[in-house]
Amino acid sequence: MPVYSISHVENVRVCVVMVGLPARGKSLIAQKIVRYLSWLSIKSKCFNVGNYRREIAGVEDINAEFFDPNNKEGLKFRREAINLAIQDMMNWFSNENGVVGILDATNSTRERRDRILKLCRENLIEPMFLESYCDDQDLILQNILDVKTTSPDYVDKDIDFATSDFLKRINYYEQTYETMDQKTDSELTFIKLVNVNTQIILNRIESYLESRIVYYVMNLHIKPRCIWLSRHGESAYNLTGQIGGDSDLSDRGMRYAKKLPELVLKSLGEENKHTNLTIWTSTLKRTQQTASFLPYKKKLQWKALDELDAGECDGMTYEEIEKEFPEDFKARDDDKYEYRYKGGESYRDIVIRLEPIIMELERQENILIITHQAVLRCLYAYFMNVPQEESPWMSIPLHTLIKLEPRAYSTIVSRIKADIPAVSTYKEKGTSQLGESITGKNISKSRDLIKDSDVV
Amino acid sequence: MPVYSISHVENVRVCVVMVGLPARGKSLIAQKIVRYLSWLSIKSKCFNVGNYRREIAGVEDINAEFFDPNNKEGLKFRREAINLAIQDMMNWFSNENGVVGILDATNSTRERRDRILKLCRENLIEPMFLESYCDDQDLILQNILDVKTTSPDYVDKDIDFATSDFLKRINYYEQTYETMDQKTDSELTFIKLVNVNTQIILNRIESYLESRIVYYVMNLHIKPRCIWLSRHGESAYNLTGQIGGDSDLSDRGMRYAKKLPELVLKSLGEENKHTNLTIWTSTLKRTQQTASFLPYKKKLQWKALDELDAGECDGMTYEEIEKEFPEDFKARDDDKYEYRYKGGESYRDIVIRLEPIIMELERQENILIITHQAVLRCLYAYFMNVPQEESPWMSIPLHTLIKLEPRAYSTIVSRIKADIPAVSTYKEKGTSQLGESITGKNISKSRDLIKDSDVV
Repeated sequence: MPVYSISHVENVRVCVVMVGLPARGKSLIAQKIVRYLSWLSIKSKCFNVGNYRREIAGVEDINAEFFDPNNKEGLKFRREAINLAIQDMMNWFSNENGVVGILDATNSTRERRDRILKLCRENLIEPMFLESYCDDQDLILQNILDVKTTSPDYVDKDIDFATSDFLKRINYYEQTYETMDQKTDSELTFIKLVNVNTQIILNRIESYLESRIVYYVMNLHIKPRCIWLSRHGESAYNLTGQIGGDSDLSDRGMRYAKKLPELVLKSLGEENKHTNLTIWTSTLKRTQQTASFLPYKKKLQWKALDELDAGECDGMTYEEIEKEFPEDFKARDDDKYEYRYKGGESYRDIVIRLEPIIMELERQENILIITHQAVLRCLYAYFMNVPQEESPWMSIPLHTLIKLEPRAYSTIVSRIKADIPAVSTYKEKGTSQLGESITGKNISKSRDLIKDSDVV
Repeated sequence: MPVYSISHVENVRVCVVMVGLPARGKSLIAQKIVRYLSWLSIKSKCFNVGNYRREIAGVEDINAEFFDPNNKEGLKFRREAINLAIQDMMNWFSNENGVVGILDATNSTRERRDRILKLCRENLIEPMFLESYCDDQDLILQNILDVKTTSPDYVDKDIDFATSDFLKRINYYEQTYETMDQKTDSELTFIKLVNVNTQIILNRIESYLESRIVYYVMNLHIKPRCIWLSRHGESAYNLTGQIGGDSDLSDRGMRYAKKLPELVLKSLGEENKHTNLTIWTSTLKRTQQTASFLPYKKKLQWKALDELDAGECDGMTYEEIEKEFPEDFKARDDDKYEYRYKGGESYRDIVIRLEPIIMELERQENILIITHQAVLRCLYAYFMNVPQEESPWMSIPLHTLIKLEPRAYSTIVSRIKADIPAVSTYKEKGTSQLGESITGKNISKSRDLIKDSDVV
């Protein structure tokens, strides 16, 4: 029998039906839910009706008038787009065993929602409505600013035109908008977010999956912040090629620890140099030694950030493992995500224990996490949406600070190298050899899946 | 620096102010929150205003008229009671470093709530209102049935009198009741539960602690159900006195596995013999072998149910540990809850990884968990509110099925012994010797903190 994570208890398929006027952050929420659930190996996909509409109606001639409820041609295209999106979603549920499909559109009238409801019920899919309601003008304007600069509808268009046209479009939607109502919609499963998370109304949230989605959405915030990730400095075990253990930093590792405060300041830039960071480390010495020169007061240790437990192989080199446990060595290369060391852990196990860390990270503001290769791969995979076949094979070199800046529709990654040499701890598939010794200046090899200043 | 669990990130004190008419399940919710937070080592206490009122006004002459809003003497006593409760709570916050205090009373008028709000703010305590609103007559009657048989106000009183008097009392409260309102109370932090969890309104939930309490309350249900706990059958390592590992069952352990289906049936009783149980095991062989003869289809493996990781001591006997690591051996005896094996875990670590299991257990119905000594101690501690100084020292013998029946204000525990001999794996403080070999007939020794058919 397979090992169950907290996320696989039920056999339920959910369609999350987004509801809300344009510029209410629906797409952002939808995409974050997909990223979070995918990271937990729950098959999820977002179906954005705007993309379908652009495909069939183009973008050239689209302006606010297209969304006038009295524009018959506009209505025809828009109806066709939603039909195509729903059709694709239903096919995805049945042909690809989808678990959570998100229908990202305004779905702003009760008539539209009733149609989706009926379709879901006919296909034995649980409908859950997720409305983002917002009447805080500052929030709306901030969102419009984001949308007009990122929306595919306004590419190459004048910014002033984009703003006024978009406001007009919102106005057309407002004419027919019916918000989810505690009385009228009391029989439906829904979440209504009012002004981001100032108020949340939950109605008939019943299944486990629904309650996970609710808890995740509850914890999201939109304050700007950054997350920094670093492996510990080079350790004594890194030098001997041993895995696991609780060794001290090497001399070069200690140099990295001493240089880390400077790297952090550099990444903050002059205007933000007084930003207060919270430092999270694992319970292992090498991460705490790496954090020891950082001038920030709040330093927390988390057992959940400890390195992947290699069980019986703890303290061995890859060569020794290949020799002593050849079958295990091969099994791990064949499926590194699922392979669990005898008496130890798999990557999947790490993801399960990191889940509360991710939830807490979503709640927090500026955090610097100093942890270990496998754990860092899993954290990075969450933020950058790396598929689980790839994440255990990512190269995350020593002596490099990674900065993540979450934006509305992207995360900006930058890397700051310490220019302090360190061994490579990267083992390629099918060999027990570690990569050649690399210096801080020479770490971006082709196997390196993260690019400098990568933007996704 | 200390190790932080997910629950210790902030430095916030919260006063949960219960709101709602009598017989709306307020005390049950309050007590469950205290039990859950205490288990996570978050210092919590419930202050029940009814208890203060009984202390100052007695119960002899108390009937519904006491609660008439026009009864001046009643009002005086009731005001005194709430003042005393608040005073005690504030003293507890400041003198005993309380973190979450719960004020369990109807707090049914805005005037009363405003007073509490003001007091909290003056004392730098975050007020969070938790209203249980219920207009489902079936639910209310069910609750009244519970209350009239358990309330200290109706001890030794006629059941018919109790019912009608209690209804009258509710009626008096209804005259002045003001429910929490999304508009009027929009500046307050509150959770409003409507008809148990059919609808939930969350307003300005901001801190981490508040969001944990919300998530916990969201997952509670009131359907009757049972939880069964068992250790795996006696294992090969149990016979040799070794800890940890992943050994097979001994012959006697296998006999227990074969007998387990019969024990479960016996505990269900004739009328419930077709109840469908879900089986949860750890990922270790000995728990799966123990589950292998159970006729239930749904069997899930959880890594989070694996035995405490003894790190470098895995596979050793206590005698060997005492000899090889005498200081660690003593340190563990001195503080067994906090002591973390080198490269392994502490009891506190187990509680942190069990937290999602507890949340899932609250959501589920009939579950049989087959797991390990230390894990079972932690699970049992949650359900039975065992303090953390005691829980690592509880004796939970092999070859015994424990059944927990959660009731409104108590959990009924019963134990069914398999009458198959097994070694003792109980190590008393200050010795490396295990208890003498015990048989299934002779397991309730004085060191045994769980009593047969214990009711708490």
